[in-house]
Amino acid sequence: MHAIGVDIGGTKIAVGVVDEAGTILAKVRRETVADDVAGIDRAIADACTELAKEFEVGAIGLAAAGFVSPDRRAVQFAPNIAWREYPLAERIEGLIDLDVPVVVENDANAAGWAEFRFGAARAATDMLMLTVGTGLGGAIVVDRELVRGKWGVAAEVGHMRVVPGGHYCGCGHEGCWEQYASGTALVRDAKQAAIAQPARAARLLELAGGDVANLEGPHVTRAAQEGDPLAVELLATLGRWIGEGSASVAALLDPELIVIGGGVGAAGDLLLLPVRKAYEAQLSALGHRPVAQIELAEHGNEAGIIGAADLARR
Amino acid sequence: MHAIGVDIGGTKIAVGVVDEAGTILAKVRRETVADDVAGIDRAIADACTELAKEFEVGAIGLAAAGFVSPDRRAVQFAPNIAWREYPLAERIEGLIDLDVPVVVENDANAAGWAEFRFGAARAATDMLMLTVGTGLGGAIVVDRELVRGKWGVAAEVGHMRVVPGGHYCGCGHEGCWEQYASGTALVRDAKQAAIAQPARAARLLELAGGDVANLEGPHVTRAAQEGDPLAVELLATLGRWIGEGSASVAALLDPELIVIGGGVGAAGDLLLLPVRKAYEAQLSALGHRPVAQIELAEHGNEAGIIGAADLARR
Amino acid sequence: MHAIGVDIGGTKIAVGVVDEAGTILAKVRRETVADDVAGIDRAIADACTELAKEFEVGAIGLAAAGFVSPDRRAVQFAPNIAWREYPLAERIEGLIDLDVPVVVENDANAAGWAEFRFGAARAATDMLMLTVGTGLGGAIVVDRELVRGKWGVAAEVGHMRVVPGGHYCGCGHEGCWEQYASGTALVRDAKQAAIAQPARAARLLELAGGDVANLEGPHVTRAAQEGDPLAVELLATLGRWIGEGSASVAALLDPELIVIGGGVGAAGDLLLLPVRKAYEAQLSALGHRPVAQIELAEHGNEAGIIGAADLARR
Amino acid sequence: MHAIGVDIGGTKIAVGVVDEAGTILAKVRRETVADDVAGIDRAIADACTELAKEFEVGAIGLAAAGFVSPDRRAVQFAPNIAWREYPLAERIEGLIDLDVPVVVENDANAAGWAEFRFGAARAATDMLMLTVGTGLGGAIVVDRELVRGKWGVAAEVGHMRVVPGGHYCGCGHEGCWEQYASGTALVRDAKQAAIAQPARAARLLELAGGDVANLEGPHVTRAAQEGDPLAVELLATLGRWIGEGSASVAALLDPELIVIGGGVGAAGDLLLLPVRKAYEAQLSALGHRPVAQIELAEHGNEAGIIGAADLARR
Repeated sequence: MHAIGVDIGGTKIAVGVVDEAGTILAKVRRETVADDVAGIDRAIADACTELAKEFEVGAIGLAAAGFVSPDRRAVQFAPNIAWREYPLAERIEGLIDLDVPVVVENDANAAGWAEFRFGAARAATDMLMLTVGTGLGGAIVVDRELVRGKWGVAAEVGHMRVVPGGHYCGCGHEGCWEQYASGTALVRDAKQAAIAQPARAARLLELAGGDVANLEGPHVTRAAQEGDPLAVELLATLGRWIGEGSASVAALLDPELIVIGGGVGAAGDLLLLPVRKAYEAQLSALGHRPVAQIELAEHGNEAGIIGAADLARR
Repeated sequence: MHAIGVDIGGTKIAVGVVDEAGTILAKVRRETVADDVAGIDRAIADACTELAKEFEVGAIGLAAAGFVSPDRRAVQFAPNIAWREYPLAERIEGLIDLDVPVVVENDANAAGWAEFRFGAARAATDMLMLTVGTGLGGAIVVDRELVRGKWGVAAEVGHMRVVPGGHYCGCGHEGCWEQYASGTALVRDAKQAAIAQPARAARLLELAGGDVANLEGPHVTRAAQEGDPLAVELLATLGRWIGEGSASVAALLDPELIVIGGGVGAAGDLLLLPVRKAYEAQLSALGHRPVAQIELAEHGNEAGIIGAADLARR
Repeated sequence: MHAIGVDIGGTKIAVGVVDEAGTILAKVRRETVADDVAGIDRAIADACTELAKEFEVGAIGLAAAGFVSPDRRAVQFAPNIAWREYPLAERIEGLIDLDVPVVVENDANAAGWAEFRFGAARAATDMLMLTVGTGLGGAIVVDRELVRGKWGVAAEVGHMRVVPGGHYCGCGHEGCWEQYASGTALVRDAKQAAIAQPARAARLLELAGGDVANLEGPHVTRAAQEGDPLAVELLATLGRWIGEGSASVAALLDPELIVIGGGVGAAGDLLLLPVRKAYEAQLSALGHRPVAQIELAEHGNEAGIIGAADLARR
Repeated sequence: MHAIGVDIGGTKIAVGVVDEAGTILAKVRRETVADDVAGIDRAIADACTELAKEFEVGAIGLAAAGFVSPDRRAVQFAPNIAWREYPLAERIEGLIDLDVPVVVENDANAAGWAEFRFGAARAATDMLMLTVGTGLGGAIVVDRELVRGKWGVAAEVGHMRVVPGGHYCGCGHEGCWEQYASGTALVRDAKQAAIAQPARAARLLELAGGDVANLEGPHVTRAAQEGDPLAVELLATLGRWIGEGSASVAALLDPELIVIGGGVGAAGDLLLLPVRKAYEAQLSALGHRPVAQIELAEHGNEAGIIGAADLARR
């Protein structure tokens, strides 16, 4: 059975038809406005209707950044779209002339599910997926089932506390993992280094066009690939936090595979090797179980579509 | 169907027949020697045989402190008994004349399962159980299923890291949760306070018979119940660490109920109120989901028997 | 001998004649522009000349926020005024027709010296002064002498690290004391609490006119004085960090008195009691030495003038 | 003027005549028993009398591990000798027939003073000395004067807190610097690594004769010199903590030179390079002042004698 997956961003929507092997057969996009909730509904419905003309689809899955109700029907809260206790599935059903189930999934969960079913974790039964981007998103699969939690808010891995009294987080707490293990943290640390040790940050500053305010993650990756010691250190620090935090998760969940998604994957081994080293160094029960593999995600931006579609079929 | 549950300690074994409501119908004990692995096998078999004469039983569950293989047949490693890759279930089956399945479960998992099925969490679907004793044990239930992990080593919650560079742990790492949230930590903190602030520790010292080396957890609880400010603070600190760590777990798993077991429960609200306060203060997505309840375990020492028996039926 | 003290801020200059008892006999002010270095020079010279007509003065002391050269002649760097390796004393000497020595002192050192000579620490020989404001400034007196350090940069107490991996600091590092023990930290923590626990922050929000962005330190102090639990906690947390950090300083310097300056002093015992409690709880060698007294500063905004004048006489 | 310096250990006393250039002209030793306070007095007096027959001496300085009264006459408390409010100088004066001043100094202060006057810091005016041994001792020189503090307990640098909630310390607190920056910490970390990552610790284990309990600091140094990655890492971690803590001290005191004493100096650049790197990386006001030099101590075990003798002359 084919299914439609919808990846809903703040300013654009990507919609695809996905077959049972996880392949996207067709894809369309729509531009949206984050505040225009009704407009987003219409854009989704319109895109689904368009695709449903060409393909027979049996389900629609909507991937949304936000807290999703445990019955997979509503978005309780979204940081970037004006959804508050919003019955998204019902609204879309009301706008389309298709008699198929519509479900809502958290976008990180959808992306993780795509990796679990059709990507880096396809052979695994227990997986931790980390999406290292602006924040640190995650998805958890335990014994082949996605962990959604009692109220649909599981796998908010970025808010596991890793440093008491640590970096302030947008959530109102301190020391959240995503303040150490995200692209944002990488850039922030690079900017701090440029203040504290300007001489060491010369190459980074150059890549940022001379203004540290313009520094971005890809500058760090590029400098590290050139061998710049500070940039290599910054990626190693990011990797260490990813690995150490993952070891804490492993103490709870004993996964066999950890998948790293997000733009920082472009750094390749400059990131992955420190992740693996820190994970092994911090792993409890080392020697009494294998060390989980840590791999890059295989699906990039399309993971949300693929995962949402597949979850809708279940 | 009745089942037998066996709680295997280092020096004694408690064995009971458990009905489907979680009630122990009969119970026997055996003394053992931790190094005598064959003797432990015989004691288990002997006790099971004795009980099976009186009750028709359909399964036997063995609760063991250690890493249990994912197929529930062997103990990979135990800290207090000389089991190494030990095929415990097979050995017991070879010694008893009963044609029933024998399974091995981690003791903390068994205790947690007892609370989930027949105790404080009987109405829940998603639970975190914490056993606050010498160390910090745990059990995790996600969507009504016990989480065992890929290699049977899940729910080692005590080794989630809560302080980078923190207290040394027997596992070889630093900052493990159980070094802050255990009876051992409570006593250690009390002893440290007696060194750093002897005047404030006068009552604790008195209860310990004048020698700080003799200080034990119940002294702290008693002093706190009398209103001793230092003791109240020590329990509040323990409670804070339990609550804050639980909030980190909640970021991952979104449980609806957290059950606190172990001897520290005797402190009642002197412990529970700080746990709840810290949990709520650190909980992510507060306001977008209910705050999980935090309750004391209902089954004390018998939880292992009850849980092991019930898990053996499944 | 009378001396002139000049307190140079980014937008205004306060100048006073100070007698040997630390009393300000006359005072004038000038408005300035932070970028106009020459204008600041002229304003200082003008004010000094005006006062010198009325009073016989023997020295001029300039208190500047910034790094001062060890010979007390130049400002090496200032965060808020465009001084870079700026020969401030020489410039002022060139603009005034007075044959008196002109010296430059760090403003926090000047304020601390005022407390040491004529304020809360007048009876002490070894003092730590902490100015808890936007940042955390300090002054150290060891055996009756101001500690300036080899390169004039001592007593930058706000940049002692108190939390590895802690709050980002404007200096480019993490976990600096001033990120925990300053008015800025107080407000930041209050704002975080308003995000993480909005219900508990209701009174603070109300005092801020309904918009958390408008929240300021005095709102926290006022709410705490009313008994608001969150506000009391926030001040206690600030106090705890001040006290614990001071205990670290005491391990190095063994002061007899710690003076707390800055606007947070308005909170009185709501701040001071937690400071004292934390200091005593963290003090090493407790029982082998007296516990240093911790008192509020006696000179408010005029401390810079008084201290700079007195230091110029020496 | 020659002076006698006495270095009082728990089980032996080393006594030397020191000239004004810091050279030891003659030296004798005595065995003692830590509990026999009167016996220690007699041994000191006896050795001093013996040396005074051959050399004309003008003062006697006693270096003692413990808290020394600010008037340099008594030991308030000693961890290893049964001195409590003990009038050591008076006792020695009563036992010798020499009309010279006798003063008591803390042993770490004495050793630091030897480096300041005649060793690695002879050209400096502002120095931090760190003695990295069983614990972390220190001495502070500000503007050519030894900092003793109001009650004689300054420079207890090892008890500056570097990690909130960190390693337990014998002083009753947590996270003291000496729990991270001492030979004891190095060995403890090595032993932890042998538990957590036995494969990586193979060479260390071999050097310890196969029993991790026998592991000592020189094993780590030797393995690191051979290139063993874990041992190199352990020394680098020790160095990082020394350097980072020193940067915190530098925020307070702005020293021009940091001297590292103690047995770990044998590791040479394997230790020193990480110390320097971490110091520079954490130093506040970098770019606005030179980076303090960090050098090994020049006087080994004799530093106490030399420093005590020289301080007695002052």
